[in-house]
Amino acid sequence: MKPLGPIPAGFETIDGELAIGGMTASALVEQAGRTPLFVYSRAHLDRRMAELRAAVPTRIGINYAIKANSFAGVLQHMAALVDGFDIASGGELAMAQAAGLDPARISFAGPGKRDSELESAIAAGVTLNCESDGEVDRALAIGARQGIAPHIALRVNPSFELRGSGMKMGGGAKPFGIDEELVPAIARKAILAGAEWRGLHIFTGSQALSAEAIIETQGNVLDLASRLADEIGAPLPKLNMGGGFGIPYFHGDEPLDIVAIGAALGERLASLPEILIDTELCIELGRYLVGEAGVYLTRIVDRKVSHGTTFLVTDGGLHHQLAASGNFGTVVRRNYPVAIASHFDAAAEEEVYVVGCLCTPLDRLADGAMLPRADVGDLVAVFCAGAYGASASPSAFLGQGPAAEVLV
Amino acid sequence: MKPLGPIPAGFETIDGELAIGGMTASALVEQAGRTPLFVYSRAHLDRRMAELRAAVPTRIGINYAIKANSFAGVLQHMAALVDGFDIASGGELAMAQAAGLDPARISFAGPGKRDSELESAIAAGVTLNCESDGEVDRALAIGARQGIAPHIALRVNPSFELRGSGMKMGGGAKPFGIDEELVPAIARKAILAGAEWRGLHIFTGSQALSAEAIIETQGNVLDLASRLADEIGAPLPKLNMGGGFGIPYFHGDEPLDIVAIGAALGERLASLPEILIDTELCIELGRYLVGEAGVYLTRIVDRKVSHGTTFLVTDGGLHHQLAASGNFGTVVRRNYPVAIASHFDAAAEEEVYVVGCLCTPLDRLADGAMLPRADVGDLVAVFCAGAYGASASPSAFLGQGPAAEVLV
Repeated sequence: MKPLGPIPAGFETIDGELAIGGMTASALVEQAGRTPLFVYSRAHLDRRMAELRAAVPTRIGINYAIKANSFAGVLQHMAALVDGFDIASGGELAMAQAAGLDPARISFAGPGKRDSELESAIAAGVTLNCESDGEVDRALAIGARQGIAPHIALRVNPSFELRGSGMKMGGGAKPFGIDEELVPAIARKAILAGAEWRGLHIFTGSQALSAEAIIETQGNVLDLASRLADEIGAPLPKLNMGGGFGIPYFHGDEPLDIVAIGAALGERLASLPEILIDTELCIELGRYLVGEAGVYLTRIVDRKVSHGTTFLVTDGGLHHQLAASGNFGTVVRRNYPVAIASHFDAAAEEEVYVVGCLCTPLDRLADGAMLPRADVGDLVAVFCAGAYGASASPSAFLGQGPAAEVLV
Repeated sequence: MKPLGPIPAGFETIDGELAIGGMTASALVEQAGRTPLFVYSRAHLDRRMAELRAAVPTRIGINYAIKANSFAGVLQHMAALVDGFDIASGGELAMAQAAGLDPARISFAGPGKRDSELESAIAAGVTLNCESDGEVDRALAIGARQGIAPHIALRVNPSFELRGSGMKMGGGAKPFGIDEELVPAIARKAILAGAEWRGLHIFTGSQALSAEAIIETQGNVLDLASRLADEIGAPLPKLNMGGGFGIPYFHGDEPLDIVAIGAALGERLASLPEILIDTELCIELGRYLVGEAGVYLTRIVDRKVSHGTTFLVTDGGLHHQLAASGNFGTVVRRNYPVAIASHFDAAAEEEVYVVGCLCTPLDRLADGAMLPRADVGDLVAVFCAGAYGASASPSAFLGQGPAAEVLV
C-alpha cells in the first residue's frame, strides 16, 4: 500500500459525491458533456488570494505567472485579483492581452525569446526581463526600429539558490538570467541607450514548502538587489523577488507557513536600504495561486484484476496529468491526492491501482491506493490539478486530445 | 563532457549543412516558414522497410503502430508500405481512416477504450484487441445493438516479459491485456456469442536492442499462442506477435540485428505447430519504423556564458522533445544524437549545453556536448525525432504551440 497525497481543504460532499462550487462531480461532468474534465474553483482562487493578501505586507505586489494555468476563465478571474501577470512567450502575451490585463502590468521572462516575440512585447509596452547581454542588445535594436523605448528589466542569475526547492533556478551556471556580477554594466548600458529602466527580476527556484528557506532567500534577494542597485548607480523602479511558494502534493507534505513569510517580509521592509525605498516590490507566484483550486475528473471505463491486483482504468491519464503520473522531472513516483469522486465520503476498503487509458506502463494516476469500492462509470478525482496540468501535458499523445476545462 | 548519441546513417552534407531528402536544413526551414520543424525522410522510411522486408520471412506481416508518429504525410506514406495499422484511440482511428487504410487491416489496442470508441471501431470493421472480460462484454453488447458481429481479438498479458526492453508490458500484474490463464474461456465466450474471431495480440515490451531477447520472446509468444489456441479449441485467424524493436538513442547503443531476428523467425516458421499453420502472423512496430527517419530542427536564439559554461538557447525544447529532454520515464538523463545542422561537417571544438526556450531547468537538449562553434541564427538538429516527438510532448506548455512538420 502506498499513501495518497493530502486532499486540499475546502472541497465538500453533496449526496455522497465530491462537490466543487456547489455542484456535484457528476453534475459538472454532465454540464461539460464529457470526461476528462478539469474543474477550477473560483472560491478556492479567491480564498488563496485573500489569505495571501492578509499575510503579506500591502506594499508587496502579487503577480500571477500564467504558465501555471492559462485557461481563459482562470486568467480573467485572476486579472481582477492580482497586481500583474508574468508571461513566458508570445503565445502567453496574446492570452494575457485577451484576458484584458494592462500590458504595463505584464512582464516577460524566458531564456529563448525570439525577435518576433520581443517585437510584439515591446510594441505592447510589456516589461522584458532580459536574460542575457545579447537579448538586451536585440531589444534595444528592435525598440530603435519601432521608435519605442523598450521597458527593460534584467533577470539576475543569483549566486545563491532556494534551498529545498523542487526546481533550482539559481546558484551556479544557468541558462536563466545574467550572472549577478555582469548585471551592473549591462543595466547601465541599457539605461544609457535610452531604455525605460524597470529594475530586476531574481527568481531562485520553485515548489518549496519551507517558510524558513523562502524567508532566507527573500532576504538574500533584497540584499542582492540593494547591492546591484548601488553598483548600477540608479534606484530600481521595480524588483520582482521571484516566488518559490510550494503546495503539498504528497503524503507528509505540510502547507507553507505564509504567515511566517509575511511577518519576515514586514520586518525586512521596516529596515529597507535607502536605494530600495521607492522600489515597487512584488512576488511572482503560479502554482501556489491556482494549483489547489483545480480538480481533474476522469471516468472509470474498466475494472480488472490481474494476478490479484485490481486496476481501475480511466478515460484520462498522463496526457492531461503528466506530473501526477510521475513522469515530469520526477525520480521517485509518489501519489498525488486522488479520490473516488462518486463516493467521496465512503470509507476506503480496497487497495487499487488507478491508471490512465494510454497503452503505456507510464500512465499511472495512483499506485497501491486505499480507496472506496469503485466500478465502471464512477468518477475519479485527482486533486492539485490546477497548475501544470492541462497546459504541461502531452494532450495529443495517442490521438487523445485535450480535456475539457471549466471554472465554477 | 558527456557523449552524444549516434547519428543515424543516411544523412548527408550539402554546402556544409545537414541535408535531408536533398535539401539543406536552412532550405527546409525557409520552405516551412518557421522553426522548430520536424523533418521526416521518405528515403529513410523506405530504406528501413526494405531492410525489414529483406530480413523477415515474407509470411510475417508488418504493422505500423501509429502512436509513434501520426503526422498525416507519414501515415499516407506508411499506408503503402505496411500490411496494417495499429491504433490506440478513436482519434487515431479517424487519422488512420483519413490516411486511406482499409479498416479491415486496422487493429485497436488500449486498456481504456470508451464505449463511443468501441462503437466507431465496430461500425468501421476494425479488429478490437480486447483488454479485459468486461471490454469483450461491452463490445458484444455494442455489436448486438448495431447488428454487426464485432471483430474480436484478445490481448494477452503473458507471464513472461521482453528482457532488456525500455518498457515492460508483460510479466506479472498489468493493466494491459487479459492474464493468459483467463484467455481461453473469454475467447470461447466471444466466439459462442457470434463475434468474428480474430485471434490474439501478445505485446511484451518496447525499445529492446538485443536480438537475442527478441528472438527468445518471439519463441515464447509462438509457444503461448499455440497453447492458448489448443485450449480455446479453435485455430487463430491472426496472431499479432508484438514488437519491441528498439533504435539506438544513446552513446554505446548498437543497432538491433534484424537479420538474426529474421533468421530465427524463419526457423520457427519451418516447425510451426499444426494449429498455427494457417494463422496470419504479424509484428507490430512503431518507433523502429519511423524513429530514425525524423530530425527536429531548432534555431539558436541566444548564446551565453554563465560561470564559464556556454549555453546555446534554442527556440525549441521539451514541449516538442519531451523524451530527448530526459523527462519521459527516464531516470538518468543521457544525450540523444544532436548536431549543429548549420555546420554539419565542421569539427567539434567546444563543450556546450544546448537548452530549449522554456523557463524551466528541465528543458535540456544536450548536456556537456562537444560540438562545432555555433552562434545565434544557426540551426541545431536533434536526431531520432521521428517517433514519440511531436505527438508525445506537451506542445501547449508555456503557450508555445506545436512545431511545424514536413515529409520530404
